[in-house]
Amino acid sequence: MTLEAVLSQIDTDLPEATDRLMKLMRIPSISTDPAYKPECEKAADLLVEDLQGLGFEAAKRPTPGHPMVIGHGGEGGPHLLFYGHYDVQPVDPLDLWDRDPFDPQVETTAQGKVIRGRGAADDKGQLMTFIEAIRAWKAVHGTLPCRLTIFLEGEEESGSPSLVPFLEDNRHELGADLALICDTGLFARDKPAITTMLRGLLGEEVTITGPSKDLHSGQFGGLAMNPIRVLARVIADLHDTSGRVTVPGFYDGVPDMPVELLEQWSALNFGAGEFLGEVGLSTPAGEQDRTPLEQLWARPTCEVNGIWGGYTGKGFKTVLPAQAHAKISFRLVGDQDPHKIRDSFRDMVRAQIPADCTVAFSGHGAAPASQMAIGDPAFEKARRALSDEWPNEAAY
Amino acid sequence: MTLEAVLSQIDTDLPEATDRLMKLMRIPSISTDPAYKPECEKAADLLVEDLQGLGFEAAKRPTPGHPMVIGHGGEGGPHLLFYGHYDVQPVDPLDLWDRDPFDPQVETTAQGKVIRGRGAADDKGQLMTFIEAIRAWKAVHGTLPCRLTIFLEGEEESGSPSLVPFLEDNRHELGADLALICDTGLFARDKPAITTMLRGLLGEEVTITGPSKDLHSGQFGGLAMNPIRVLARVIADLHDTSGRVTVPGFYDGVPDMPVELLEQWSALNFGAGEFLGEVGLSTPAGEQDRTPLEQLWARPTCEVNGIWGGYTGKGFKTVLPAQAHAKISFRLVGDQDPHKIRDSFRDMVRAQIPADCTVAFSGHGAAPASQMAIGDPAFEKARRALSDEWPNEAAY
Repeated sequence: MTLEAVLSQIDTDLPEATDRLMKLMRIPSISTDPAYKPECEKAADLLVEDLQGLGFEAAKRPTPGHPMVIGHGGEGGPHLLFYGHYDVQPVDPLDLWDRDPFDPQVETTAQGKVIRGRGAADDKGQLMTFIEAIRAWKAVHGTLPCRLTIFLEGEEESGSPSLVPFLEDNRHELGADLALICDTGLFARDKPAITTMLRGLLGEEVTITGPSKDLHSGQFGGLAMNPIRVLARVIADLHDTSGRVTVPGFYDGVPDMPVELLEQWSALNFGAGEFLGEVGLSTPAGEQDRTPLEQLWARPTCEVNGIWGGYTGKGFKTVLPAQAHAKISFRLVGDQDPHKIRDSFRDMVRAQIPADCTVAFSGHGAAPASQMAIGDPAFEKARRALSDEWPNEAAY
Repeated sequence: MTLEAVLSQIDTDLPEATDRLMKLMRIPSISTDPAYKPECEKAADLLVEDLQGLGFEAAKRPTPGHPMVIGHGGEGGPHLLFYGHYDVQPVDPLDLWDRDPFDPQVETTAQGKVIRGRGAADDKGQLMTFIEAIRAWKAVHGTLPCRLTIFLEGEEESGSPSLVPFLEDNRHELGADLALICDTGLFARDKPAITTMLRGLLGEEVTITGPSKDLHSGQFGGLAMNPIRVLARVIADLHDTSGRVTVPGFYDGVPDMPVELLEQWSALNFGAGEFLGEVGLSTPAGEQDRTPLEQLWARPTCEVNGIWGGYTGKGFKTVLPAQAHAKISFRLVGDQDPHKIRDSFRDMVRAQIPADCTVAFSGHGAAPASQMAIGDPAFEKARRALSDEWPNEAAY
């Protein structure tokens, strides 16, 4: 059987495939930090070269940010598009890494061998899995299995600002029968999942300015407004005591969960305590009137991803700082409108700013949620294929 | 008259005196950051050498932190002790400096010539003023004016952890009739002040830990407790809506202001709007039922001097951080007990920490307020001397 020969070829080629992944992982393609722009270009170049070697007509395509990598190859239906991203998240705080995150290694752990390094799980490992599958198929058959488009982004970890404009500008070239995205999670270590809905993402950076310069708190403290105090109040008020987000209109467009899906999720026997226990926690911290899986998968959220202001070094400095900053993100579901929520959030914050302070916002991405039509037979085919290869049946 | 000759000598020697101050200011003696320990030693060495050149028996004296500089010289009463500190505050954020803060320059401004650089106003400028006064006296008279002890600390900007133990261990050596401290402010640019009460200082660093490691907010958001959210609530709740500090028992020991002093302050015609206007503010932000000068001079305060957690670099990272941190300081007055307030603050914070989070504290200094007996004739002598040299009479 031809598939068995391909699977066997994949096993044979595993050491070389691992080396190729490591080579890609050694490139620190951190998209959010402009200092790493050349590294993003380097990662894109490496992928273009690899795709060309597999017979793809491949090229790096410019955007206002980091380039897209596009490859076309193969013939015959269906036309499949594979999306992945070659950029990675920043690696700080560096002192929590045991080693250089861009010097990946295969480690033997209690759960088996793992590849440790930035991008192994998000998303260089996944995108190379698809490329290696294509490589193995080609080695066995001499051709590609069908018409394939490879579409690799370099800005996924920084809000994908170029993605939608690029898709719109190239809608005919990138149109396909099916798009495969491998950038989500397993349900459990031994149980794969096909993600059929994705929360959207709205990012906001807030800067509150009080005094025109940093002050000595001994000289001005008690009289001058401290912007950290204002920012803390803004953040504290983003959730009420029941864990609900307080931005006016935030829950507009959040759908009720279909009873069948709630029942299916209930059958998964998700252990919130166990899930949280792996990261040192125990208690679901979201909306208290929702089940843990709803909090995690179905409900919109608001998180503070970063906060800073004043003196943050060792020791003490009695500064009354001029500015305080926070990065805040919202995960969106259903028909929540990211632009309306952005406006409502900004209005809510502005209303909390005292006369002596000013606030400035900068947006980082505004993507609505998406939900797929799981009636399409491709979902069941994908589930069967995944279930064949894993100890447990794949979940939707 | 001998004093006139000394004053004239000071004027003559001004260029060289300025050079000596600049030399001291070029040493980045940032006491709070261990990386600058050698620079603190260097500043102490320079001062010891200068004092020895003036005939003082001077030495660097070790402490568990940065060394003290002690110099003894002169004969006859009264025995005066001069205290100053050779350490300086950190200089970040560096991008708000027009130049290297440790490359001081004399600048001509609309208000006259100023020396711009770290430590010019706190406290290298002041301590060198005393040393230059001694140098001029010695140049004219060949001897020192009376028995003098110079006592220079290197940890004032980091909570003075060694000061009290050192004073206790050397109480006989450092006993004096009068101690002069020149490390406070003018009332106005053209009106000097003799500070007769000083607020105490209690510093606390708070670290709240949620998850055992940084999480991806897309994967855990909604379910995992975010320590920034907890910290924001803690900070927001430190003041009530009227600007009062909410730490239980915080105002125990805060004295009522004597009516006479309130009247004297009222006569100063302090313009809060003008004072705040110089730093881009307009509205007193302290206790709303107190006058601006009370908020500034007489009332205890709570300030957040620094806050940090999560991703604080450029761009965005959808992290749900393991930890959030803040540096919080309290200015204390009257008989407020820093140790009781520390305990009460920590209890209050602990009570706000959800089951899934932990909190750790580290203390940075705990000094009570001090108030001097202004009936001593030395105060009036000092006021007359200052008033002679300035356009306006000195204020208490």
